[in-house]
Amino acid sequence: MNQNNLIKLLSSVADGSVSVEKAKDKLTHLSYENIDFAHIDHHRSLRKGFPEVIFGQGKTTDQIIGIMNKMIQTEEIILVTRLDKDKAKTIQDSFQHIDYYEDARLLKYQTKKIEPTGTGTILIISAGTSDIPVANEAYLTAKAMGNRVEKIFDVGVAGIHRLFAHQKKIMAASVIIVVAGMEGALPSVVAGMVKSPVIAVPTSIGYGTSFGGMTALLGMLNSCSSNIAVVNIDNGFGAGYMASSINHVSVV
Amino acid sequence: MNQNNLIKLLSSVADGSVSVEKAKDKLTHLSYENIDFAHIDHHRSLRKGFPEVIFGQGKTTDQIIGIMNKMIQTEEIILVTRLDKDKAKTIQDSFQHIDYYEDARLLKYQTKKIEPTGTGTILIISAGTSDIPVANEAYLTAKAMGNRVEKIFDVGVAGIHRLFAHQKKIMAASVIIVVAGMEGALPSVVAGMVKSPVIAVPTSIGYGTSFGGMTALLGMLNSCSSNIAVVNIDNGFGAGYMASSINHVSVV
Amino acid sequence: MNQNNLIKLLSSVADGSVSVEKAKDKLTHLSYENIDFAHIDHHRSLRKGFPEVIFGQGKTTDQIIGIMNKMIQTEEIILVTRLDKDKAKTIQDSFQHIDYYEDARLLKYQTKKIEPTGTGTILIISAGTSDIPVANEAYLTAKAMGNRVEKIFDVGVAGIHRLFAHQKKIMAASVIIVVAGMEGALPSVVAGMVKSPVIAVPTSIGYGTSFGGMTALLGMLNSCSSNIAVVNIDNGFGAGYMASSINHVSVV
Amino acid sequence: MNQNNLIKLLSSVADGSVSVEKAKDKLTHLSYENIDFAHIDHHRSLRKGFPEVIFGQGKTTDQIIGIMNKMIQTEEIILVTRLDKDKAKTIQDSFQHIDYYEDARLLKYQTKKIEPTGTGTILIISAGTSDIPVANEAYLTAKAMGNRVEKIFDVGVAGIHRLFAHQKKIMAASVIIVVAGMEGALPSVVAGMVKSPVIAVPTSIGYGTSFGGMTALLGMLNSCSSNIAVVNIDNGFGAGYMASSINHVSVV
Amino acid sequence: MNQNNLIKLLSSVADGSVSVEKAKDKLTHLSYENIDFAHIDHHRSLRKGFPEVIFGQGKTTDQIIGIMNKMIQTEEIILVTRLDKDKAKTIQDSFQHIDYYEDARLLKYQTKKIEPTGTGTILIISAGTSDIPVANEAYLTAKAMGNRVEKIFDVGVAGIHRLFAHQKKIMAASVIIVVAGMEGALPSVVAGMVKSPVIAVPTSIGYGTSFGGMTALLGMLNSCSSNIAVVNIDNGFGAGYMASSINHVSVV
Amino acid sequence: MNQNNLIKLLSSVADGSVSVEKAKDKLTHLSYENIDFAHIDHHRSLRKGFPEVIFGQGKTTDQIIGIMNKMIQTEEIILVTRLDKDKAKTIQDSFQHIDYYEDARLLKYQTKKIEPTGTGTILIISAGTSDIPVANEAYLTAKAMGNRVEKIFDVGVAGIHRLFAHQKKIMAASVIIVVAGMEGALPSVVAGMVKSPVIAVPTSIGYGTSFGGMTALLGMLNSCSSNIAVVNIDNGFGAGYMASSINHVSVV
Amino acid sequence: MNQNNLIKLLSSVADGSVSVEKAKDKLTHLSYENIDFAHIDHHRSLRKGFPEVIFGQGKTTDQIIGIMNKMIQTEEIILVTRLDKDKAKTIQDSFQHIDYYEDARLLKYQTKKIEPTGTGTILIISAGTSDIPVANEAYLTAKAMGNRVEKIFDVGVAGIHRLFAHQKKIMAASVIIVVAGMEGALPSVVAGMVKSPVIAVPTSIGYGTSFGGMTALLGMLNSCSSNIAVVNIDNGFGAGYMASSINHVSVV
Amino acid sequence: MNQNNLIKLLSSVADGSVSVEKAKDKLTHLSYENIDFAHIDHHRSLRKGFPEVIFGQGKTTDQIIGIMNKMIQTEEIILVTRLDKDKAKTIQDSFQHIDYYEDARLLKYQTKKIEPTGTGTILIISAGTSDIPVANEAYLTAKAMGNRVEKIFDVGVAGIHRLFAHQKKIMAASVIIVVAGMEGALPSVVAGMVKSPVIAVPTSIGYGTSFGGMTALLGMLNSCSSNIAVVNIDNGFGAGYMASSINHVSVV
Repeated sequence: MNQNNLIKLLSSVADGSVSVEKAKDKLTHLSYENIDFAHIDHHRSLRKGFPEVIFGQGKTTDQIIGIMNKMIQTEEIILVTRLDKDKAKTIQDSFQHIDYYEDARLLKYQTKKIEPTGTGTILIISAGTSDIPVANEAYLTAKAMGNRVEKIFDVGVAGIHRLFAHQKKIMAASVIIVVAGMEGALPSVVAGMVKSPVIAVPTSIGYGTSFGGMTALLGMLNSCSSNIAVVNIDNGFGAGYMASSINHVSVV
Repeated sequence: MNQNNLIKLLSSVADGSVSVEKAKDKLTHLSYENIDFAHIDHHRSLRKGFPEVIFGQGKTTDQIIGIMNKMIQTEEIILVTRLDKDKAKTIQDSFQHIDYYEDARLLKYQTKKIEPTGTGTILIISAGTSDIPVANEAYLTAKAMGNRVEKIFDVGVAGIHRLFAHQKKIMAASVIIVVAGMEGALPSVVAGMVKSPVIAVPTSIGYGTSFGGMTALLGMLNSCSSNIAVVNIDNGFGAGYMASSINHVSVV
Repeated sequence: MNQNNLIKLLSSVADGSVSVEKAKDKLTHLSYENIDFAHIDHHRSLRKGFPEVIFGQGKTTDQIIGIMNKMIQTEEIILVTRLDKDKAKTIQDSFQHIDYYEDARLLKYQTKKIEPTGTGTILIISAGTSDIPVANEAYLTAKAMGNRVEKIFDVGVAGIHRLFAHQKKIMAASVIIVVAGMEGALPSVVAGMVKSPVIAVPTSIGYGTSFGGMTALLGMLNSCSSNIAVVNIDNGFGAGYMASSINHVSVV
Repeated sequence: MNQNNLIKLLSSVADGSVSVEKAKDKLTHLSYENIDFAHIDHHRSLRKGFPEVIFGQGKTTDQIIGIMNKMIQTEEIILVTRLDKDKAKTIQDSFQHIDYYEDARLLKYQTKKIEPTGTGTILIISAGTSDIPVANEAYLTAKAMGNRVEKIFDVGVAGIHRLFAHQKKIMAASVIIVVAGMEGALPSVVAGMVKSPVIAVPTSIGYGTSFGGMTALLGMLNSCSSNIAVVNIDNGFGAGYMASSINHVSVV
Repeated sequence: MNQNNLIKLLSSVADGSVSVEKAKDKLTHLSYENIDFAHIDHHRSLRKGFPEVIFGQGKTTDQIIGIMNKMIQTEEIILVTRLDKDKAKTIQDSFQHIDYYEDARLLKYQTKKIEPTGTGTILIISAGTSDIPVANEAYLTAKAMGNRVEKIFDVGVAGIHRLFAHQKKIMAASVIIVVAGMEGALPSVVAGMVKSPVIAVPTSIGYGTSFGGMTALLGMLNSCSSNIAVVNIDNGFGAGYMASSINHVSVV
Repeated sequence: MNQNNLIKLLSSVADGSVSVEKAKDKLTHLSYENIDFAHIDHHRSLRKGFPEVIFGQGKTTDQIIGIMNKMIQTEEIILVTRLDKDKAKTIQDSFQHIDYYEDARLLKYQTKKIEPTGTGTILIISAGTSDIPVANEAYLTAKAMGNRVEKIFDVGVAGIHRLFAHQKKIMAASVIIVVAGMEGALPSVVAGMVKSPVIAVPTSIGYGTSFGGMTALLGMLNSCSSNIAVVNIDNGFGAGYMASSINHVSVV
Repeated sequence: MNQNNLIKLLSSVADGSVSVEKAKDKLTHLSYENIDFAHIDHHRSLRKGFPEVIFGQGKTTDQIIGIMNKMIQTEEIILVTRLDKDKAKTIQDSFQHIDYYEDARLLKYQTKKIEPTGTGTILIISAGTSDIPVANEAYLTAKAMGNRVEKIFDVGVAGIHRLFAHQKKIMAASVIIVVAGMEGALPSVVAGMVKSPVIAVPTSIGYGTSFGGMTALLGMLNSCSSNIAVVNIDNGFGAGYMASSINHVSVV
Repeated sequence: MNQNNLIKLLSSVADGSVSVEKAKDKLTHLSYENIDFAHIDHHRSLRKGFPEVIFGQGKTTDQIIGIMNKMIQTEEIILVTRLDKDKAKTIQDSFQHIDYYEDARLLKYQTKKIEPTGTGTILIISAGTSDIPVANEAYLTAKAMGNRVEKIFDVGVAGIHRLFAHQKKIMAASVIIVVAGMEGALPSVVAGMVKSPVIAVPTSIGYGTSFGGMTALLGMLNSCSSNIAVVNIDNGFGAGYMASSINHVSVV
């Protein structure tokens, strides 16, 4: 239910054409649907421009299918994140229009082509080849949310000339996502080169004192560059979502 | 030196009007100035649209004054962050056009009025009254970088109706900075209400297991809302800088 | 052995009708039973109103069966927590009156219907669908201990209107258990709405910097609401137990 | 504004006697007051039975006085927590009816005698003499909120017979607050003796690996007794508040 | 090589009956044996009264068998700690005189009956049934090193009367090992009852914030009792070894 | 009250010469004294062979003096640990027979010469000169508890021949306390040389990743030598107490 | 492309014999090769004297083979680190000249005998037998990079005479790598004996508070010896690489 | 005592010209001097090529002066590290030939000019101006140990062109020390440019999640460049010492 409809409803309450009781019912059922194990937030696509994304981890396949069954009645795109291959298989057997991306552990239900609506181009840079699954999760998310997206992979700071060779593309991007594990130094270097906002994504790639990505995260939070903000470890989805949000700032 | 000038110089090398040696010198001296204890990055205002910001912590007053003496020759605005009151006093005695904001520990040298150049409005929300110094650092930074900025203070989740009363202003902002200490829950709630990007700033307000802001930071990184990214604890400056960068994405 | 019996015994020692030696034996064997690998606390159901609960983790199936064999001689209800499916299967083959709840990993032996004896209603709220197993452990525990219990699942802060829709039920509860993973913000919001005590249960749902529930726990400990206290990560059992204890405060 | 008034207002909107615009204004201004650096939650004493408590840390004396000036117009009791002696002195000079408790760092403004309204007695136990300031903060808070409160200090587990000597008083309490630093073992022992709910408060007393109370906190969260929940380190205020909330569960 | 032999050898060097070169060889080969992947410390049984104990974790079965093949030529008892069942099986097939204790993950090679040589009795107390494997590792180690050892299992602080029922045995012990997981409170209580030295052993039993035994360890290090010292998490072997060392202090 | 007296009293209850009520009173008041802010454990010197030691940190001077005033009525020696110089000064003005050791922050009240009653000699070794204050706290404690004590200071592993030069004294000790900061490696080396029990004391000497002694503590807990146990960081008092307890194991 | 070639190219740009466009292309393609999922740094063997080493963890077998296919066109040696046995098997089926070292998890492709070019000898010492896999990774790396390498295994500080027996070899080495888990004390002792640089490698051998090697790492960082520097936990490869770098310092 | 003298002494024992007793005495007193609070390691300058360095932290001025009084009898250079200005003042009043460097907190006693004996040049690079004190401690140490040393300050990765401008000097160095706080990314970038060994020094410059340098340290340990090893936070002294050790590897 969008804002215009809400105003109409309240006015109807005021002029008596809708009773208080009825209005209460309407607002209750329009904004979410309670299916016992989930309160589906149908209001989200109106409020935020994109429907609720299903967090796959810790949910049973039955729960995910139950939620999707309700959502497909009103949505043209649904994402399920952090979904294991086995669960994805079962879901693919239950619905049409499904793509599953194994390395990104992302499942997408989509019934209509997505047109880019964002202002500029989102660029996704990964420090290493091992960081690609997280980078791809960001890529797929940003694409699904209506953005032009490009990518440059494996240009870490141990051979920094590889990064500088892409300087033109880097400076042309409106938003940049930098994905890095280990010491997580790449976002600082990239952010030092541009005026665009940089979303830094630490990955759990590394061993010993990489502490499952904590070292990369801390490095990014302490960057000596300032046009930078950080998301959770391995959170390619969040980075893509935030980048899309930024890329739509000036879109009416 | 901006990009056009760089292309001109290289073309001159190609047609022989400038020698290799001379071009090397030119590029060396234009891009930074070495004053022994600092390499001042004069190139930064061209590259990033804002001059180098001086990190006040750990520098002597003499070092800061030395750096400012060089910078004022080419810059109209200079910020010094994390500056104690005592050092600020000495610097104010050495330069004109100085403002010092004690709660934000920010010193500003400014010789020209700043016009807003960003697309929309940046809104700064603080969870508590005790978070105001950090919120003000973000406010002053974003202002200095050419943005319209508004603020709402003390609307934390323990009395969440106070936040919802400002819903209109919140939904109208192009970028939102949310500053919170303790459990750091406010950015999740705000980000759940809007489609704009939210910059979350944890503060060191709290005690015991707040661990100097670590708890708020962790909460923000694990937000169940997705249009959110995080900066370092008490980093109001970085939040203002990042917000300004976002607010200028579509500005040519 | 209850307190009246204890006074009788000591008086008998004083008037010589019971010898010191005999009294010592009696007290030794009544209060617990030593079966080599366990000291079963038979006294607990008198002292605490509920028999000893068996912590399933780290015990062999033989040990659990051995303890239960002793307990069923005097108890009408026995709970085994943190019990894997395989061990539960073997125990179910050894006893009658067994229910096993796989998601809550709780096994219940029960020979008599449990009547609610608590003052009011305990309400269990979960932030997400993935938090349901922990919420169910709390639900089953509180039920088993003689309470009216209700539940609302998946009303996290990213779509906070879903929570407010249940305001009436929330305000009517005498004790509220709030189960949440990720940033763990929900208990603060709920506690801000009511005057009832809130038990916050962090779950290990999340990834990266959720640190197996540590982030949710820290958030809850630093809540800006004050009618709140916290139990261990994923400790649905403890939350249910504590809530029952609170719900029986005024019961003579 | 209490719930009855809210229903009246909404009915007036329905029958046209109050316009939508006017109702909006009324709800906006009744629920909180915006004094620029604070949104005072006037609604809280209706909603939660006790007015907003001012968190003293990180606030200037002027800010605290500003907030109190607004609150005293409607409230009979105001608490300021975590307040240094110097700030307290200035506030005492600005208001009448002020008591300041230096060890508990608590300031109380009170214009009317407080009658106990809770069901039973709250008992506060401290493990050591050094834990008394935190125990006193709990004591003063619970007293201020309308409870009968008793205390037993310095009965730690290194000489556990001291605790057992108070068994009668311990078993008679309706809620027990146990305050302990170092290894934080006392709450487990106390909770093992009673069926009442126990609020465990870790203190920062200790050195080396006590980590400012973290060790005591962790011990309490991992208690093998189950009628126990925990608040933040040194949070005597929160413990008193939670205990009062529990002690009023059956109060209509 | 014991100390008397060493003095003889050096005197022979002094009177010329043994050459410098020869003495060097003798000392080199007597004190250890280099078998490429290990330097077996044959000197240890002379120096420390017990032969080198083989740390099983991280070693291949071939390496363990290789070391044992050398050791059995001079030793009557050999312990292998932290040994998985599968590796133990293979070793049992290669040697006679082997016992393997699966819960304690300890393998013992022994060719001669061990007589108790220690001063008094070592008592091993476990807080819970789940702590028994670690307690048994301590028991077996102390037994193997020539001590009278007794045990009391499952007498944790949640039903502390179970502990006090064994007061006589506890006060009679010369050294006490207390094994506990979760909050690790039992050693403090036991140490408060006696004047004997107490070795505290934290176990990894628990979940959530038990952090694999770190919480129990921290609790023990911060004990308010003083006749207490701590070993590594799950280090039953070390506790048994240290207790034996204490129990032999006055043995010439 | 010692054990013989206790048996007498209980027998008197049995034969009627002492009433139950009177016996209860006697046991209550003999075992501790309640002075409001402290429960003084008068029973401790009977039970543990040494009176209660006053933990100075976090207590006011008045509280310490109050406790001492009660204790001097029955004790010949009293220790106050972790006492600042200023507080010590005030206490020295209130009592006779006081010695204060500034580096060890230990205050001793003593009215009678202490004779060594332990079996052998306790040896205290420090790794560095900076560790001496902690080593001295251990020295003074062990002396006060009736032990022969010797010391060797500044023999850390960076010049390990300094340690080996004292081999004779090291091998002659019945108990060894090793005090070390930084990497805390010395206890492993010392314990590898002897069969006596070694108490390892980590100190907070170091910087950066020494984490206030945590690194030394962890090193000591993970020692590859096994006749070793550990006390809290900077806990010289506890080490001296534990060593004395060990040195009296075979004393009847 | 080496430095001489770079100067030639730039001179050709200056004299017009090479166009700006062409030079740009040349520099772009010589320095790295972009194969979509990787930017292979062909420049590295010129710049650093050894080709890029492939980090095996987190890469698919196809990705590794793809990278190797490009590299074998110009390189005579390729290392793949942190490679599981299964992946190694597949790679061995795709290329000739492959050796795989299972304990070190290192794969080596080599087409030409490697001659030692370093100044002196690199000595690798391990504290225990369980540390050998990491020590071997260092050994193989240093060998592959052109160094004479020797090894001494299992000479930890619990029987320190084993170490001193190798004093001659230790003092003769030009660089020493010391590999140790648990308390990680060995590097301090070794560095105290020599003037050569010591590279300390913590291993994850241990349990409980060894925290996967963190304790050993911290010990090494806090060494009281100063000719010591540290690499990541289990990073035998990095230690071998750094040692080779040191051993070639004076090689022109 | 150097190695030749040791061989002479032992041969004299063998031929009877020196008695066993006398040889023992000689070796005991030559290798160190015991002045009660310190064992001065006179042997160190022979063994390691540089006399013992006095760790100033935690020592009294009297202790430092006492140690220096002994050392100046045989040494031409003495360093005292981590020395506060006040203590330095007192020491300067007691000795001649003293220089004190306040920012590096280093005191140097020196009676003879130091000639460079190392192979090449040690280059010290700092990321920021605030890191200079630590960089200077490294500089002074390396100078004092006989090395040519150069420095480049404030060339951090936020304006990385400043670093590349010094490429020639960087590539010419035989050993490089890189000092950086915050995210600590600079050493990775530098090490990626050269084949020389890089010593990385994390500094405590930063705030919030810089955790006193822990973030920089972790970043450096997880560097994707391999010719890198790390020292403790703020350990400029250790870095200078290690670099000197490396720079003398090929010096006979």
